[in-house]
Amino acid sequence: MSRYAKKDYPVSNVCRFLEPGPIVLVSSAWQGETNIMTLGWHMIMETQPSRIGCYIWAANHSFEMIRRSKACVINIPTVELAPTVVRIGNCSGSAVDKFSRFKLTASPGEKVKAPLIDECYASFECRLVDSSLIKKYSLFVLEVVKAHVATSPKFPQTIHYRGDGLFMISGPTVRTYRRLFKPENL
Amino acid sequence: MSRYAKKDYPVSNVCRFLEPGPIVLVSSAWQGETNIMTLGWHMIMETQPSRIGCYIWAANHSFEMIRRSKACVINIPTVELAPTVVRIGNCSGSAVDKFSRFKLTASPGEKVKAPLIDECYASFECRLVDSSLIKKYSLFVLEVVKAHVATSPKFPQTIHYRGDGLFMISGPTVRTYRRLFKPENL
Repeated sequence: MSRYAKKDYPVSNVCRFLEPGPIVLVSSAWQGETNIMTLGWHMIMETQPSRIGCYIWAANHSFEMIRRSKACVINIPTVELAPTVVRIGNCSGSAVDKFSRFKLTASPGEKVKAPLIDECYASFECRLVDSSLIKKYSLFVLEVVKAHVATSPKFPQTIHYRGDGLFMISGPTVRTYRRLFKPENL
Repeated sequence: MSRYAKKDYPVSNVCRFLEPGPIVLVSSAWQGETNIMTLGWHMIMETQPSRIGCYIWAANHSFEMIRRSKACVINIPTVELAPTVVRIGNCSGSAVDKFSRFKLTASPGEKVKAPLIDECYASFECRLVDSSLIKKYSLFVLEVVKAHVATSPKFPQTIHYRGDGLFMISGPTVRTYRRLFKPENL
């Protein structure tokens, strides 16, 4: 599996990669242990600060790791990683060291202790800034504090979950409609 | 603009159309007025009940209409509607009757007063079930109470916003990885 060379990226622009709705891999660290989970339920909640909401179910091993460490990394895999994304979702971090099992490379975060996944197209270091909605809604309100994005390609081929075991692979990026936007809406 | 013939659809399965992350059109009604807004910030929060979170900014004309009527319809446009989706986002319902301006057909909702948009691939009637997060996070917690989905095609060509005026058009749906899923994860 190849690793993406990345550069720093403005945290207020991470919506460009998350708003299209890709499946993400969320990595975490707690008390010397790391873990990775597959996640499809996330949304942009603000750009300044760069805020993201993630639904993480209490039954996931990552749930307590992220809640206690108050941090995670949201990584964006591309289509080459699709089989790995499924396999990561099939097993639990309570039984498996997922970095080792799936031959993924953990790089240290700059702002958080959770590791980045080098084989992903982008990695967003996040802090848990509001844990008050976890109990009622399993909703983790995160703030992106550091973003790393691959230098190429410009538009990654991401995977989007359709349910029932089917993925949609992201299609063409079109500029056709750009002239229709009001400048302040771009 | 053609209208999609639709059938009733299980509300717990609307995640199949929202989890891939399409831009949606949110329609609403309040005191004899209707409106439509373009929205990219949404997420699945639960499937049973079928719960969706939407970030709706206080400056949007729809904000008060949905907050007061406690209802809206989430409609999924396909690529043919892309120019209309941009134009709907460019103007405000305070100045424009969007159904009339954009020649869209409003059908009555069965469970809510907000209208469906017939030219969209799917329409999900929603009730606002929690307004406590609106002030702090602009987060509307909605429950889908009735779903209408086109009888064909099986997989719509949806539009996904990449920022900066660029859309990603949904690509192929692949079954390749289905055999890798554990049955309980499908």
